[in-house]
Amino acid sequence: MSKKYVYHFSEGSKEMRSLLGGKGANLAEMTKIGLPVPQGFTITTEACNDYYDNDQVIREEIVKEINENLERLEKEQGKKLGSDKNPLLVSVRSGAVFSMPGMMDTILNLGLNDTSVKGLAENTNNERFAYDSYRRFIQMFSDVAMEVPKYKFEAVLDRVKDSMGYKSDTDLTTEDLKSIVEEFKGIYKKEIGEDFPQEPKKQLMLSIEAVFRSWNNPRAIVYRRLHDIANNLGTAVNIQSMVFGNMGDTSGTGVAFTRNPATGENKLFGEYLINAQGEDVVAGIRTPQNISTLENEMPEIYKQFVDITENLEKHYKDMQDIEFTIENGKLYILQTRNGKRTAKAAINVAVDLVNSGMISKEEAIMRIEPNQLNQLLHPTFEEHAIKEARLLAKGLPASPGAASGRIYFNADDVVAHSKDGEKTLLVRLETSPEDIEGMVKAEGILTARGGMTSHAAVVARGMGKCCVAGCGEIKVDEANKEIRVDGITVKEGEYLSLDGSQGTVYLGDVAKKGVELTGNFEVLMGWVDDVRQMMVRTNADNPRDAKSAIKFGAEGIGLCRTEHMFFEEERIPAVREMILSNTVEQREKALAKLLPFQEQDFYDLFKVMNGLPINIRLLDPPLHEFLPHDDEAAKALAETMGISFEDIKKRIIDLSEFNPMLGHRGCRLAITYPEICVMQAKAIIQGAIRAKKEGVEVAPPEIMVPLVSEPNELRIIREIIEKTANEIIENSDVKVDYTVGTMIEIPRACLLADEIAEVADFYSFGTNDLTQMGFGFSRDDAGKFLNEYVERGILEKDPFQVFDQKGIGKLMKMACELGRGVKPELKLGICGEHGGEPSSVEFCYEQGLNYVSCSPFRVPIARLAAAQATIKNPRNK
Amino acid sequence: MSKKYVYHFSEGSKEMRSLLGGKGANLAEMTKIGLPVPQGFTITTEACNDYYDNDQVIREEIVKEINENLERLEKEQGKKLGSDKNPLLVSVRSGAVFSMPGMMDTILNLGLNDTSVKGLAENTNNERFAYDSYRRFIQMFSDVAMEVPKYKFEAVLDRVKDSMGYKSDTDLTTEDLKSIVEEFKGIYKKEIGEDFPQEPKKQLMLSIEAVFRSWNNPRAIVYRRLHDIANNLGTAVNIQSMVFGNMGDTSGTGVAFTRNPATGENKLFGEYLINAQGEDVVAGIRTPQNISTLENEMPEIYKQFVDITENLEKHYKDMQDIEFTIENGKLYILQTRNGKRTAKAAINVAVDLVNSGMISKEEAIMRIEPNQLNQLLHPTFEEHAIKEARLLAKGLPASPGAASGRIYFNADDVVAHSKDGEKTLLVRLETSPEDIEGMVKAEGILTARGGMTSHAAVVARGMGKCCVAGCGEIKVDEANKEIRVDGITVKEGEYLSLDGSQGTVYLGDVAKKGVELTGNFEVLMGWVDDVRQMMVRTNADNPRDAKSAIKFGAEGIGLCRTEHMFFEEERIPAVREMILSNTVEQREKALAKLLPFQEQDFYDLFKVMNGLPINIRLLDPPLHEFLPHDDEAAKALAETMGISFEDIKKRIIDLSEFNPMLGHRGCRLAITYPEICVMQAKAIIQGAIRAKKEGVEVAPPEIMVPLVSEPNELRIIREIIEKTANEIIENSDVKVDYTVGTMIEIPRACLLADEIAEVADFYSFGTNDLTQMGFGFSRDDAGKFLNEYVERGILEKDPFQVFDQKGIGKLMKMACELGRGVKPELKLGICGEHGGEPSSVEFCYEQGLNYVSCSPFRVPIARLAAAQATIKNPRNK
Repeated sequence: MSKKYVYHFSEGSKEMRSLLGGKGANLAEMTKIGLPVPQGFTITTEACNDYYDNDQVIREEIVKEINENLERLEKEQGKKLGSDKNPLLVSVRSGAVFSMPGMMDTILNLGLNDTSVKGLAENTNNERFAYDSYRRFIQMFSDVAMEVPKYKFEAVLDRVKDSMGYKSDTDLTTEDLKSIVEEFKGIYKKEIGEDFPQEPKKQLMLSIEAVFRSWNNPRAIVYRRLHDIANNLGTAVNIQSMVFGNMGDTSGTGVAFTRNPATGENKLFGEYLINAQGEDVVAGIRTPQNISTLENEMPEIYKQFVDITENLEKHYKDMQDIEFTIENGKLYILQTRNGKRTAKAAINVAVDLVNSGMISKEEAIMRIEPNQLNQLLHPTFEEHAIKEARLLAKGLPASPGAASGRIYFNADDVVAHSKDGEKTLLVRLETSPEDIEGMVKAEGILTARGGMTSHAAVVARGMGKCCVAGCGEIKVDEANKEIRVDGITVKEGEYLSLDGSQGTVYLGDVAKKGVELTGNFEVLMGWVDDVRQMMVRTNADNPRDAKSAIKFGAEGIGLCRTEHMFFEEERIPAVREMILSNTVEQREKALAKLLPFQEQDFYDLFKVMNGLPINIRLLDPPLHEFLPHDDEAAKALAETMGISFEDIKKRIIDLSEFNPMLGHRGCRLAITYPEICVMQAKAIIQGAIRAKKEGVEVAPPEIMVPLVSEPNELRIIREIIEKTANEIIENSDVKVDYTVGTMIEIPRACLLADEIAEVADFYSFGTNDLTQMGFGFSRDDAGKFLNEYVERGILEKDPFQVFDQKGIGKLMKMACELGRGVKPELKLGICGEHGGEPSSVEFCYEQGLNYVSCSPFRVPIARLAAAQATIKNPRNK
Repeated sequence: MSKKYVYHFSEGSKEMRSLLGGKGANLAEMTKIGLPVPQGFTITTEACNDYYDNDQVIREEIVKEINENLERLEKEQGKKLGSDKNPLLVSVRSGAVFSMPGMMDTILNLGLNDTSVKGLAENTNNERFAYDSYRRFIQMFSDVAMEVPKYKFEAVLDRVKDSMGYKSDTDLTTEDLKSIVEEFKGIYKKEIGEDFPQEPKKQLMLSIEAVFRSWNNPRAIVYRRLHDIANNLGTAVNIQSMVFGNMGDTSGTGVAFTRNPATGENKLFGEYLINAQGEDVVAGIRTPQNISTLENEMPEIYKQFVDITENLEKHYKDMQDIEFTIENGKLYILQTRNGKRTAKAAINVAVDLVNSGMISKEEAIMRIEPNQLNQLLHPTFEEHAIKEARLLAKGLPASPGAASGRIYFNADDVVAHSKDGEKTLLVRLETSPEDIEGMVKAEGILTARGGMTSHAAVVARGMGKCCVAGCGEIKVDEANKEIRVDGITVKEGEYLSLDGSQGTVYLGDVAKKGVELTGNFEVLMGWVDDVRQMMVRTNADNPRDAKSAIKFGAEGIGLCRTEHMFFEEERIPAVREMILSNTVEQREKALAKLLPFQEQDFYDLFKVMNGLPINIRLLDPPLHEFLPHDDEAAKALAETMGISFEDIKKRIIDLSEFNPMLGHRGCRLAITYPEICVMQAKAIIQGAIRAKKEGVEVAPPEIMVPLVSEPNELRIIREIIEKTANEIIENSDVKVDYTVGTMIEIPRACLLADEIAEVADFYSFGTNDLTQMGFGFSRDDAGKFLNEYVERGILEKDPFQVFDQKGIGKLMKMACELGRGVKPELKLGICGEHGGEPSSVEFCYEQGLNYVSCSPFRVPIARLAAAQATIKNPRNK
């Protein structure tokens, strides 16, 4: 039997997606379950491939099948394509297996010509409607199928309207439209070199070919390459008879959701217009009516429609977004699809569907897009308030949430004003580590410079604090303590509001609504945790962040950056003293001052975490970061330390580096200054002993050595840690266990992960640095080209936001395999920012990681992503 | 039959190295061929392993074998250990399979005790000699076998000499020595808690155990780990009867080479002392005599010795370094080994041995240490002159060679004075790209700051120019144009001399000898080229370097860095104009000015290379490197360009980066500013056409895209190059072929080398950057810790000098395999500095590379290394 290339809607089903495309399968499915769908047929994806296999010719055999199906359709509808009596009009649409931008748009009203337009006029008793439809068809066909630029037609319309003094298209008379049709046909002839095709079958075949051709237009090819969609899938073509909602008062058109897409409330939600076409709803000239009023206007139709929506939801087991048209008192369903919804609605719908037995808990979990949870985890502006607010500028959405406060231009002012409970925003050209205190106290942060990975952005995300970064439109005048933008000046102490999810800055104090993580959110996350097979920890450097992370479900700390503890005001002098020491003795003296602070830090963390594990990373960044950044601060320091200003300047220059990212940092510091490592090891163990003595449960601290590129580094530092720790433990009556491991963040560490595993108890992937070194991209500098790379599709995603699985992922995979090959019980985790990005979480799960760690506010996202990964591919227990 | 653990010298041979160790096998071999070797026996490496397998006890069975062999030795020698008549004395030495520092030293005179010392005195008729030998033995045994610190014994000697007013040990009388022996025994008892062992067999067994123990001392373990020597090889122990050259005028001792180790001349070369021990020759108190005088003093012995040396050379087929002792008119050979020699001698000896049919050409090639060739490729100081010269300071040996000249403190002064033929040296705190012109003209370069990979060092090596870098002792006062060191001031215009191979700086104009690459050097390099299966190219950016590389045997250019062409004085204004352009049009205008220069550059190179291939790398470094570095230069530029100083400053700040190494450079520039790439492609193709029109043979230019991390980058830039090039070629009547490929210098490029190969004609490994990113080491900053890493053995070698095969090498291997997997004909090369380092060259050969490329002066080294790699493991043709 020869292959079948064309399927009537009644011959397909939703399972035939690969043959009929998404749209075709859906129309067939609705037909199958008895819904009133305007009938038609689908030309298969195989026909498209056949077209390409035959030098872009639609073979006779397929043409024959198309004609047979067309005849069948004409018979069913009692209409005839091109007829002057009862003309059949059809739409032509592309329909690939995966929805794909760049493919051909819709052509409506196909079948109209100089003859059938008269039939349509007669049949609908509406000559204006008929000619308006005809001119629309000419325009759409020329543009979409024949690539005649749209503006050539628009120019004619504009000219006519201008000359007649019309305001809108609806003012055009029948006579106007008739002459426009003639002019449009002239344009077509001029551009194409042939008369506008009067033969409807020719119109149809040209349109079908146009759909096939659009499969291989450049945009579609690029899209497929980026999304790994095979080139040989092909596209289907759908031919569907037209229905009209603008045939009078017993006609209409509308859109409805089976539930409220904002809240998830289980109540039909939607709107419609009587005597209108879909375009009219979109154009917004007339105000649509609420769907509930249809019950009064057309009770029969309403009842039928409600029944259909309920059936559709049950059939597809999800909230549906349904398009319908009423033609002369008869209801048609044009489309149904899973409805887009807010995070809140998504959760409510999913839990409700589970409760009503329609879907399983696993299905409910798979229904929620993890990143969408962001909406719920941060405060947002009240919708009404934001509509009224005055938008001042737009920057980068660096850290989500909404925040309002009086603006201050340095950390000290923020701290001072925050003391009295005043709400403040920190506004800076860009932030530096010295601003930390102010960032902690402020409600939100606004910077003029810096990208998504600038200091302000990274630190704010870590704190879960709202931040708009790189807002270049705003001139920040730190000296005069004011900002200027577009002629508006906002001075210190005046209110601004920031939306860190949008990157927008508003004047004044815009009203907000809070975070609500109870009810169905809790229910769903409970299911998530039941399913999940990978732990989720948090990156937290202090008890405040740790507490908020536990609230979000963190099961431990995956990264405690000890250097963040060094910036506080009362410590920085001792830190600087340590750095500027010229001898081991001097350095040890300074470190002795820091020891009590660090011990207290760890003690506090052990108390908050109360038995949950903590991974503590030893000092990582280049020492010069801690030094004063301007002469004034340097002078003050010189005075405090009793050394000369010149000496301090010289040391700062000595410590400066060409490429600090690749410089004297991480474990390299512990190799050259082992006494720093000794102090930190002491502080960890003593803090643990103190906590234990007070009855706090303390999980064995995980001591993490950063920036290891060579097994010997870890071997040496491990010895220092063990010597220090064991001596304290032996002299204590409290027993403390601990483990020693390393960040895997340097490419070479991945390559030698077998050798390193011999001296490591655990690995934690530092994918930020691994991405930097693996790509040769400095996060601080990549802004100059990375956006362009993503926009042009050179890279599919920003690799600092979404882990690069196919490149850097190979290194991670290699490290996991080499490490576990030597030491099967090696604990594996990730603490880069990717640990909270859903696709990266899934990748980590696939590599067999024990946990991911992310900033507190991303913990629920990571939990959900980890559960979804498990459902897709459960691990053997 | 039970295992044999002890071998008499007459029972072994040089093939039994793994059992007898290097030294034992050698003594056995000499015995076997009938040389007069003081006899003895070797305890095998298996006995050492047996010792460790049995809780560090020497089993009875082995003790028995030792005793049997000792008895046999006593019988042969007619002496007895510990006898008061005719005592046998022996030496005990460790002897591992591979020579290994950290292992036990020699113990001499074992067998002496309170009784046998008298026998020795009587036998030799020299009581002083006997007691001196005894006190030496106590000291050596205590130190080496029992770990009693040497200084405790030295202190006694010093005290006695001081109290008696003696100047040297030889002033000590017999009575002094007798009382010293008593005191030494007292020290032993105090330290060890037992009497000094009088039983010679106990002395022997303790010494043997000490050798076994030394196999596992920490230094030896670290050494084995670093050199991949298995821990289970074990060490052998050699027990050999003592002979004495200090028994009177018919005794003596000496060392001789079978040929001259400085020149290779085929004539016995050496010296000896009558009535002396080996120590005396080393101590230098008496002046040894030339070996030739022995012919008159002891004609019989001389003749016997000459015969033996000739036999040994024939037997070992190489120049020998032979130690001998004459005891009472009887000649003994104590050791023979291949003699150390200069590069010149090495070549002359090797060629001579081939000519005389003793070794093959391949063996001759394997005899030369490639790095040693460095001695020949650069001028050196006359030996007599350097002995008399005044050493001023020591820095890093940044680029080899010897140079003298009048010093100047900036490039302009160097250029100005060089015009008159004056020899100059450029002295700077550190160099920057703006100094290039001065570096070209100067004889050598001296900097106070910067390491082996600083700008000065890298550029100087590229030019083959002598450079001493990082000479921190010298205070360079650029303002006053003088240097100060140790109270000496050298002013502008005064002479200094630099030894770039040693890193030394001398006062005045020290005489030099030139480079001589004819004669046997040419002969040997001819053989090298016959054998070699991998090409050797050079890194060269201009005709001068290219010419010198061809002289050294380069077969093409493996890396032409086009940015080096941009620094010249007449071009830099246009370069800066290009960088500061705000629009594409402005940039294209500036580029149009550069085009003729670049075209000329390439045209000149094509002419010099005359048909040899050239790999041209497109612009690589961050643009801000080209901008003026101080306000003055910026102001001048602003004036020239007619824009404001503030604008220029702003643009310079905009272009500055936190981590320029990982910033906006390489192909990222071509992506954001494609017009730069267009200009360079034009210049290459037009230069080639012009050369061809003049009849020059032009190999298809290889256009190389730097810093690719993603296949799409190369795809886009390749399209730009092809469009530009093909347009020119189509409009020309001369046909030019070209290829497009990429540097592989980013880890991710290695990981995606299969995808990249689809759009690349060749790969060239940029191992400098690959090492930087793979290790996370910035070359410019790593000086702060890298030296310590190498000194402490954390890393075996500086990975910027010797390619890290086990780490970064995995990336290279992966890239070769992935690339060739997709495209078997993919051309592979290396252009990092490792391309001239012998072990790295061998690694490249093993990965199947088509060529290595290195700086001109390293080309012969790379050729030799490549030939040796081929001999070790020939490729299938």
